[in-house]
Amino acid sequence: MAKQLRIGMIGYGFMGRTHSNAYRRVTNFFDLEYHPVLQAVCARNAEQVQAFADRWGYASIETDWRKLVERKDIDAIDICTPNNLHKEMALAAAANGKMILCEKPLSMNTAEGEEMVAAIEKAGVANTVWYNYRRVPAVTLAKQIIDSGKLGRIFHYRANFLQDWTISSDLPQGGAALWRLDAAAAGSGVTGDLLAHCIDTAIWLNGSIANVSAMTETFIKERTHTLTGKVEKVGIDDACAFLCRFQNGSLGLFESTRYARGHKALYTLEINGENASIRWDLHDLHRLQWFDHRDEGIVRGWRSIHVTDSDHPYMKAWWVPGLQIGYEHTFVHQVADFLQCLAEGKPCSPTFREALETQKVCDAVLSSAASHQWKNV
Amino acid sequence: MAKQLRIGMIGYGFMGRTHSNAYRRVTNFFDLEYHPVLQAVCARNAEQVQAFADRWGYASIETDWRKLVERKDIDAIDICTPNNLHKEMALAAAANGKMILCEKPLSMNTAEGEEMVAAIEKAGVANTVWYNYRRVPAVTLAKQIIDSGKLGRIFHYRANFLQDWTISSDLPQGGAALWRLDAAAAGSGVTGDLLAHCIDTAIWLNGSIANVSAMTETFIKERTHTLTGKVEKVGIDDACAFLCRFQNGSLGLFESTRYARGHKALYTLEINGENASIRWDLHDLHRLQWFDHRDEGIVRGWRSIHVTDSDHPYMKAWWVPGLQIGYEHTFVHQVADFLQCLAEGKPCSPTFREALETQKVCDAVLSSAASHQWKNV
Amino acid sequence: MAKQLRIGMIGYGFMGRTHSNAYRRVTNFFDLEYHPVLQAVCARNAEQVQAFADRWGYASIETDWRKLVERKDIDAIDICTPNNLHKEMALAAAANGKMILCEKPLSMNTAEGEEMVAAIEKAGVANTVWYNYRRVPAVTLAKQIIDSGKLGRIFHYRANFLQDWTISSDLPQGGAALWRLDAAAAGSGVTGDLLAHCIDTAIWLNGSIANVSAMTETFIKERTHTLTGKVEKVGIDDACAFLCRFQNGSLGLFESTRYARGHKALYTLEINGENASIRWDLHDLHRLQWFDHRDEGIVRGWRSIHVTDSDHPYMKAWWVPGLQIGYEHTFVHQVADFLQCLAEGKPCSPTFREALETQKVCDAVLSSAASHQWKNV
Amino acid sequence: MAKQLRIGMIGYGFMGRTHSNAYRRVTNFFDLEYHPVLQAVCARNAEQVQAFADRWGYASIETDWRKLVERKDIDAIDICTPNNLHKEMALAAAANGKMILCEKPLSMNTAEGEEMVAAIEKAGVANTVWYNYRRVPAVTLAKQIIDSGKLGRIFHYRANFLQDWTISSDLPQGGAALWRLDAAAAGSGVTGDLLAHCIDTAIWLNGSIANVSAMTETFIKERTHTLTGKVEKVGIDDACAFLCRFQNGSLGLFESTRYARGHKALYTLEINGENASIRWDLHDLHRLQWFDHRDEGIVRGWRSIHVTDSDHPYMKAWWVPGLQIGYEHTFVHQVADFLQCLAEGKPCSPTFREALETQKVCDAVLSSAASHQWKNV
Repeated sequence: MAKQLRIGMIGYGFMGRTHSNAYRRVTNFFDLEYHPVLQAVCARNAEQVQAFADRWGYASIETDWRKLVERKDIDAIDICTPNNLHKEMALAAAANGKMILCEKPLSMNTAEGEEMVAAIEKAGVANTVWYNYRRVPAVTLAKQIIDSGKLGRIFHYRANFLQDWTISSDLPQGGAALWRLDAAAAGSGVTGDLLAHCIDTAIWLNGSIANVSAMTETFIKERTHTLTGKVEKVGIDDACAFLCRFQNGSLGLFESTRYARGHKALYTLEINGENASIRWDLHDLHRLQWFDHRDEGIVRGWRSIHVTDSDHPYMKAWWVPGLQIGYEHTFVHQVADFLQCLAEGKPCSPTFREALETQKVCDAVLSSAASHQWKNV
Repeated sequence: MAKQLRIGMIGYGFMGRTHSNAYRRVTNFFDLEYHPVLQAVCARNAEQVQAFADRWGYASIETDWRKLVERKDIDAIDICTPNNLHKEMALAAAANGKMILCEKPLSMNTAEGEEMVAAIEKAGVANTVWYNYRRVPAVTLAKQIIDSGKLGRIFHYRANFLQDWTISSDLPQGGAALWRLDAAAAGSGVTGDLLAHCIDTAIWLNGSIANVSAMTETFIKERTHTLTGKVEKVGIDDACAFLCRFQNGSLGLFESTRYARGHKALYTLEINGENASIRWDLHDLHRLQWFDHRDEGIVRGWRSIHVTDSDHPYMKAWWVPGLQIGYEHTFVHQVADFLQCLAEGKPCSPTFREALETQKVCDAVLSSAASHQWKNV
Repeated sequence: MAKQLRIGMIGYGFMGRTHSNAYRRVTNFFDLEYHPVLQAVCARNAEQVQAFADRWGYASIETDWRKLVERKDIDAIDICTPNNLHKEMALAAAANGKMILCEKPLSMNTAEGEEMVAAIEKAGVANTVWYNYRRVPAVTLAKQIIDSGKLGRIFHYRANFLQDWTISSDLPQGGAALWRLDAAAAGSGVTGDLLAHCIDTAIWLNGSIANVSAMTETFIKERTHTLTGKVEKVGIDDACAFLCRFQNGSLGLFESTRYARGHKALYTLEINGENASIRWDLHDLHRLQWFDHRDEGIVRGWRSIHVTDSDHPYMKAWWVPGLQIGYEHTFVHQVADFLQCLAEGKPCSPTFREALETQKVCDAVLSSAASHQWKNV
Repeated sequence: MAKQLRIGMIGYGFMGRTHSNAYRRVTNFFDLEYHPVLQAVCARNAEQVQAFADRWGYASIETDWRKLVERKDIDAIDICTPNNLHKEMALAAAANGKMILCEKPLSMNTAEGEEMVAAIEKAGVANTVWYNYRRVPAVTLAKQIIDSGKLGRIFHYRANFLQDWTISSDLPQGGAALWRLDAAAAGSGVTGDLLAHCIDTAIWLNGSIANVSAMTETFIKERTHTLTGKVEKVGIDDACAFLCRFQNGSLGLFESTRYARGHKALYTLEINGENASIRWDLHDLHRLQWFDHRDEGIVRGWRSIHVTDSDHPYMKAWWVPGLQIGYEHTFVHQVADFLQCLAEGKPCSPTFREALETQKVCDAVLSSAASHQWKNV
């Protein structure tokens, strides 16, 4: 008989959908001791949250998140709200002894993140942060390959996250749909939204970042604010790039922007080692590029691995070789892993503490950009 | 209040999973008047079918399909069994006034297919055949583009379906897992399994096929039979290729095999028109290749369309631009369309009658290969 | 001191340029015992041929090819004329004891080709036919790999040659520029022009073709003839496709057309063996695609070999790894090989006799298309 | 009657071959008023330089470059020597009134470059620096597109130059073959060798660079020196990356290394504008990637332009659509342009003065890396 993990989710936007889908599907595909139960979803607008609950099968709704975190019939709180609400919610949930699954980035900044880590560790409950791209099968495969030592000494790591959806100056900022453009709600622009993903994966794959030199830019200086109706100064970074050195001596180059015409969500990463290299990008997420210098010379070349075989990470659970999965599956995998870790009593990466590392790099990046100086992490 | 469509599914193999997943997910993503209800699943082994029912949430099980098709609480029968059972089940389901969603190919041959069409049309109930690749968003987009007339006069159509999973001579034939290698269960080899998909799409995109010249081959002549344990003659075609002429005057070239090392499920299609051309392949199913000769000369080139925008077919229901979906979504789309058509009182393509066209081409292909002569469809 | 090979070339069109370039460049890059000398070029229009001679450094001109083939100061005749002139010129050259380098296809048909083979073999002189694509480094590499046995038993061979330059019905036929559209000058359309290349490579890589089933089409039935100024029936095949069986038991699929919008000169080939597969295309001629099933499973994938390393065929003569060569180099390679073979007293493939094989397949293809029957080669 | 431009070349290494080939071929393909004459080649070893002269058709040799620059029968000096010799040779050549074609980078540093610019401008003679990648047809096409205004406001520019040939610690430094690894001969490592190309193209396409923040690394600290036979400290940068801002407000990101396993000579560039974006890479140099947001939405995508049509830059001179050229042709184009400019009395970009801009950026980059500070150019 399966054990239940009763979920209470706060927020029902884009991430609310991806998480709900993950909870609903995970046991169809993965054999798990714990099964998620969609116990409650919470948001301020009762009518809208009820419609969401109906669509996804949540058993109940709340309109006050403080009530949700106090409910006795909830085991875990899933935080899907804008960044500026993470800390307060997490602290309250931890105080009530709830497990927490928190959307990324962990917090608005390092100071907040440290409070959250302290709270969750004091509570001693399971926790994870939704850096979902770690669980693209091709990315997890990259991790396996790197951990096997196949690359040898690492020389270079580079990552981009390129989008183009904010180029129009007619786009407003703020409000439910566009809070990512509002510094008050998001904390930063592309740094916390996009680079945070790149940094999380980079630390996972290549270890800690020692220091950074960054530059940011806000291309469109003013936008109408959805909530006030007025043209207001834009406080976020539209683009951010940085150089860095990793603790292992390799060099890093990171860039993100929402002004790269032609790229919708082009997260790319590459790592170059003494013996071999790996590349991956989100637009063709089911492929991994692999180059091994130890291959016989005349037939040596970059391999395009179609990551759909049953011996590839997570793929045994899905279909047959050649048939690809997509973006949403990364969330299913994170739920599967969270539940498996719960059964085994292990932490589920990235934990709050691990995600705090990314926050520190983001802070160093923003500080470097502001001061035009190299900053240690 | 949603209307219910109570599903009774026969079979729970690979296709049973894809269909079940589709029924469970469709209303999370699509707004529909009819909602599917997983009423019953049927297979001979009670223990196994119960486990399947538990995993996917079917309300009940049956071990005798004849009972299932007679149940009053079932609206539609979904046939997911080997090809040699389709006809009998469909005839019984139709006789009981059930709607039918039948796996492809429709039947073992044209004669069977004609009986099935007669039965379903006599019953006057909704029906469809799971040629799911029509509903890859990129393929549906191809259809839209072709229907808009952008290609002009069509000169060429070519399609391949290349796999490599039966190269080992150690692989047995027959039984639940390998019935596709058993002529008694499958009728044919790659012709009915793979080429049938290519032919269905081709007719949909480019109209009827007039005549064919085909060749088939069975590379491995004998395999151990799973059911008898004996080495037996292999009766299926391992590979099949054919030339054809379409009714619109264009030339066609089709090939399928399970002996193309390096290709897992590489269904590719290309159509060349006077003004423009389209290419697609299943290994990167979220992309469509498009060439338009009317583009300005110096910047003319094949476009790689990342079919993830909200104005692309079906994509508004899913995530945001740049985030791809996968194989399983094609079944969700077919369910969504079936339910939408039901609400509107329209047939849902491909119907049994439409799928019979593909059967006729398959028969002509096999007949041509056997006789070494051109055959009219 | 280098020995001289004094060349007399007939014709100065597109192929005249590629050959002249090859003769001029070969000794800059290859160390050879024989050096080509541009002794004479011949064409009917004295003014134009003189301009060509001046540009390329030919020491003299002729306006009557019969005089050229009789000149004592010429060692080898290079035939770059339309197909209908090959036989007569070759017979005269052979009668005068000249070596011959003849453009492809060897002849208008098998009967002509047999006369030519008899003549050249009677003369006992060095000869070769310019099937230049064999000497793309990536294609030569494919040959090396296949000969090494890495592929195991061969199951499939497929090749396309797709162009789109004759789609406009305003394009005339015939004359110096468009003789390839004139059946009287070319013999056939895409069969002799494009498929002949595919067939030559296929026989080289995969052995003899046993029998064929073909279809041809002339999409535009009438075009103005450049020489007469009148609208005349088009006698060539605009498109040709055929199925075949090779002597080694593998299946073949070939197609060529000048009506595939978006493809300029897309010659592609693929060969699938038990253990490994190879793909190549002319639009990115410096790459070879290679799949080896014996690679470790989790990192198995198609390799894109950038054929620019010094241990790749011919590449030691050129630049450094990563820097690609192009189309014209294939002719340089053929000259280098011809001269090397001459020094070693070996035949230079494809000889007239070898090229006759391709002619036989072309004849079988055209005969099959005309009769709608399978034909043995 | 063609005018002659009598060339005296110093050095006969890799670049000596590319230039010689360019001089020899240019008039076969381009119609020009001036024709180059291979008058003399100069290097210290008489035997080796004579062999080179014989192979390439130079009329004479010199073993003392000072004699060469004084010869009355030489119109232009081509400098193909290591970087540390450029200045002295250029000054002497200019003093003798010779035109100069100088290999890149112009000089060891800005100070030297300024002397060279002063000298050549005082002499008032034609001059150019061999930043050959500007003249890849696809790159020139990018320039045409950008100049046409199709991109709108520019947001981003990024360029990489990735190689992997110095990863082995067994590779020595210095001497004729490996002077690029010797700081005394090369001035810098990848900055002057590879990034200089990226910077030259960037300035040409996107205007001046205002300021930079850079990082360099020498991964292998000691290598045997070819000339001394001793293990010596490595003085060059093995890798260099920098952030920058262009004068037009766009952000730049540049990286080069010889430690990126799997990349032989992967020079890539991308520019993102408000309306459109362009990408290119040297490993498939005959293609240009183009994205235009103004394309119709449902068929919008990155176009892969096969830059082989007669209306593409330089391509009319070569073959027919679909048939690619390679690396060496960029030098032919530069000679063609130099000769054409000479006839028209125009400067041939990049002139010494233009190339000095790149030198200034390189100096700022190296200074920034050394000081860990942003530097203005």
